Amino acid sequence: MEKMEENVNESRRSFLSTSGKVLAGAALASGVLSQARQASSYAYETDYKYVKLDPQKVGQIAYENYAKRWCASSVVAGFVTELQEKAGGSWKTFPIDSMRWAHGGFAGWGALCGTMTGAGTIIGLVINETDIAEAMTNDLAFYYSYSELPNFTPTTFSKTAVHNMTIAGTPICHISVGKFMRAEGVDFLSPERAERCARLAANVAVETAIMLNDWKDGKFKAKHKPLYNVLANGITSQNDCMDCHGNKVPDTNKYNTLDK
Amino acid sequence: MEKMEENVNESRRSFLSTSGKVLAGAALASGVLSQARQASSYAYETDYKYVKLDPQKVGQIAYENYAKRWCASSVVAGFVTELQEKAGGSWKTFPIDSMRWAHGGFAGWGALCGTMTGAGTIIGLVINETDIAEAMTNDLAFYYSYSELPNFTPTTFSKTAVHNMTIAGTPICHISVGKFMRAEGVDFLSPERAERCARLAANVAVETAIMLNDWKDGKFKAKHKPLYNVLANGITSQNDCMDCHGNKVPDTNKYNTLDK
Repeated sequence: MEKMEENVNESRRSFLSTSGKVLAGAALASGVLSQARQASSYAYETDYKYVKLDPQKVGQIAYENYAKRWCASSVVAGFVTELQEKAGGSWKTFPIDSMRWAHGGFAGWGALCGTMTGAGTIIGLVINETDIAEAMTNDLAFYYSYSELPNFTPTTFSKTAVHNMTIAGTPICHISVGKFMRAEGVDFLSPERAERCARLAANVAVETAIMLNDWKDGKFKAKHKPLYNVLANGITSQNDCMDCHGNKVPDTNKYNTLDK
Repeated sequence: MEKMEENVNESRRSFLSTSGKVLAGAALASGVLSQARQASSYAYETDYKYVKLDPQKVGQIAYENYAKRWCASSVVAGFVTELQEKAGGSWKTFPIDSMRWAHGGFAGWGALCGTMTGAGTIIGLVINETDIAEAMTNDLAFYYSYSELPNFTPTTFSKTAVHNMTIAGTPICHISVGKFMRAEGVDFLSPERAERCARLAANVAVETAIMLNDWKDGKFKAKHKPLYNVLANGITSQNDCMDCHGNKVPDTNKYNTLDK
């Protein structure tokens, strides 16, 4: 996986270099990034307590919930079911289905993969500092985008085999699921696609549980720089500009006054 | 706005017709849609009570929170600040900042506009039936995508003027904010872009409050068919296939067994 990320970063560097943005990006990333992070981060109160959980169990619960609750609330179910029992408090009345609308990239609109919304909700309820929640969700977006997924193996017998893992290159549902459908040769309403999304929900739940456990132990460390994409590309973005724009990537630095 | 939606639907119909998908889409939309909705909807428990709120006040609070909390948690702030006082209960301990990670389309990744994540969270916590939460978030995605926004006028004095309203055509942050930046001629880190997103958060909060008030009065009625995009296009999607794909829109019905 690290190798893949290196390749992705290399592609972005080539692109930035070619379009003459690399210096602006580097300048932004060094000075402004730290300023922006410092200025914008703060602690907040939350009474949603976290206790360390077995990531595989959280993943398995997410997997088993998928058929009923779909992607976002399945990830929520993985954590809330366990935390209601083991941490209690506010978790006891948190409605697991409250995030179900986030399925299919917002009620089927194909935007952000619902597994990310579900995981982000748990991270945000648990973590009481905005910069740590930011770093953790950012790392999760990298994991989702540049890992071959799903590789979760359910402990319960599954009737449906999934033959392909794919690299989404983005946390956007439409593209992520579309790449899988093409690889697997199945339509959206197929059992294989549903099985894939159930396993993907499990993978995201497992990865999130690992990070939250590390945080609970005081050893969570961000793997990637938060907000780097925004500052390097001059807009909220991913590292796949040319996927949609072709070679005609708009020059967002045209109006950028920060490096003048 | 209705006129715009008609145009959008007309474009999609032309596209579907051209690519020979219109019959499959229609067949799916009529029979399978109602089955899918019926099978998948259920009631759930929530103790997050809703009382009718003044939409303009909710919008104004969202607007005022933006500089600190950014898009998602600003919409959350609009509701939670009011509901903590007027409905009490679980709202009193709900951490407003728990959804801040959703800013910039997920920690700056440009996917789903954070205002939608914030609004969806409130809708999901309040509404206790999955099909109503689905319909309301779906209507919100139509509102966001096909309205000229932002048109919210803050009651407090704002130092920054915003000269352009734009039609995003999508709830995706990167595209939505990119269209505004191009129209306004400003970069992402400009005061105008921040002001635009603050007003947009207010607009989304107002629209959500209007729908929730209607629901509280027992008169909420969906304007659009939920899951239509999924079934008509054969994948979680929007009505802008050609924006990214050009004319090479993959034939997702290739593997579709439902209309055979």
